[in-house]
Amino acid sequence: MVDDNKLTIILFSGEMDKALAAFTLATTAASMGFKVTMFFTFWGLNVLKKGGLLAKKTNLLQKMFGFLNRGTKNTLPLTKFNFAGAGPAMMKMLMTQKKMASLPEMMKTSRELGVRFLACTTSCNIIGLDREALIDEVDEMVGAASYLGEAKDTNVNLFI
Amino acid sequence: MVDDNKLTIILFSGEMDKALAAFTLATTAASMGFKVTMFFTFWGLNVLKKGGLLAKKTNLLQKMFGFLNRGTKNTLPLTKFNFAGAGPAMMKMLMTQKKMASLPEMMKTSRELGVRFLACTTSCNIIGLDREALIDEVDEMVGAASYLGEAKDTNVNLFI
Amino acid sequence: MVDDNKLTIILFSGEMDKALAAFTLATTAASMGFKVTMFFTFWGLNVLKKGGLLAKKTNLLQKMFGFLNRGTKNTLPLTKFNFAGAGPAMMKMLMTQKKMASLPEMMKTSRELGVRFLACTTSCNIIGLDREALIDEVDEMVGAASYLGEAKDTNVNLFI
Repeated sequence: MVDDNKLTIILFSGEMDKALAAFTLATTAASMGFKVTMFFTFWGLNVLKKGGLLAKKTNLLQKMFGFLNRGTKNTLPLTKFNFAGAGPAMMKMLMTQKKMASLPEMMKTSRELGVRFLACTTSCNIIGLDREALIDEVDEMVGAASYLGEAKDTNVNLFI
Repeated sequence: MVDDNKLTIILFSGEMDKALAAFTLATTAASMGFKVTMFFTFWGLNVLKKGGLLAKKTNLLQKMFGFLNRGTKNTLPLTKFNFAGAGPAMMKMLMTQKKMASLPEMMKTSRELGVRFLACTTSCNIIGLDREALIDEVDEMVGAASYLGEAKDTNVNLFI
Repeated sequence: MVDDNKLTIILFSGEMDKALAAFTLATTAASMGFKVTMFFTFWGLNVLKKGGLLAKKTNLLQKMFGFLNRGTKNTLPLTKFNFAGAGPAMMKMLMTQKKMASLPEMMKTSRELGVRFLACTTSCNIIGLDREALIDEVDEMVGAASYLGEAKDTNVNLFI
């Protein structure tokens, strides 16, 4: 049964601007009474990483990739005008001036409003992230089948 | 009630190729009788900017950001092979050769077919764009809640 | 009639990571009994190209564009950390280590599971790709209207 009060978001991208868009939609929807499920995959998993920490049993290739792909919700780049971090800093200042919530604040709010965080097992497995490497707020590590099970019950499904 | 003759598009990206994809879908859908709503946010707002003009009351940071992010529907980059504008010029030539409508022409057609243009208030507020800085065709400046209100009534919702 | 056992994916992007995400969703959905339709447009058409071959009747501009945009499913870049091909090679090694299917393997599986491949006529026309330049697995070359006809019958529609 399709429920029109439900939103699923796949967050594939690891940029601050896309994460902000995803969490603005998620928190707004949740405050309107939508059930919201976010499925984090590939670069989107950076939003859920603790401190750039990888699983203990990573191999050399995973360590190399983890080094390239270091960074967390506090240090995401922009899709444009990144300038080695100057762009995101500018964006954060603009948001503070306008009394907008930051990404970590939005994530906190989204949790208070009941938004669910699912982390893609397959991506975690490739990159070398285990449950320990992700923030406590992650509800479950699941595969694409679980996401599809959620998506088929709603009409608002976005890939960001 | 979910209406299967309705399409919503969030245009988040500010590249010519993605804008062309969005407007091809929007105009085709509208000509098939779909009700179409486009919600422009972040870089996607560049499509709606008049002449790179910012709101009068912008502060220094917004002016700096506005300078970086200057450009309108006529000067959007490509996601690939941009080469400081050579790529988009090549793409425009290819489209002219094939008698395809240009982005500004597609925007005009989409309006004639009743496609609605919504601009995201929150993004405008951060970047420093007010109603005056946007083209006349914008129907309304609204928040994410208005978008979600539209999206929940249809099953074809795309994030571009 | 909206069918909740159906998935459509527009693959607009031409990067390996996004193509992997698209085919993971497509094959998983198909194995769960979903009817799956993939619509390839713009850079996403690179996934369907034979050997970087263009249509015979391409003009100079199309040839130039085709040279820039050469490459197939075997040589797609990454959205990040591409490093002239070192990033994709690293990603492929990580996937092999984890016994994950490669992109060409996933494409094969998706076909065995009945996933349909539609190629966007308009994009092909601009870029200079005809039926001969695309792999045999392509079911049809169609326009946006055909995609929308599929999308209106389901509630899980993704733009990647």
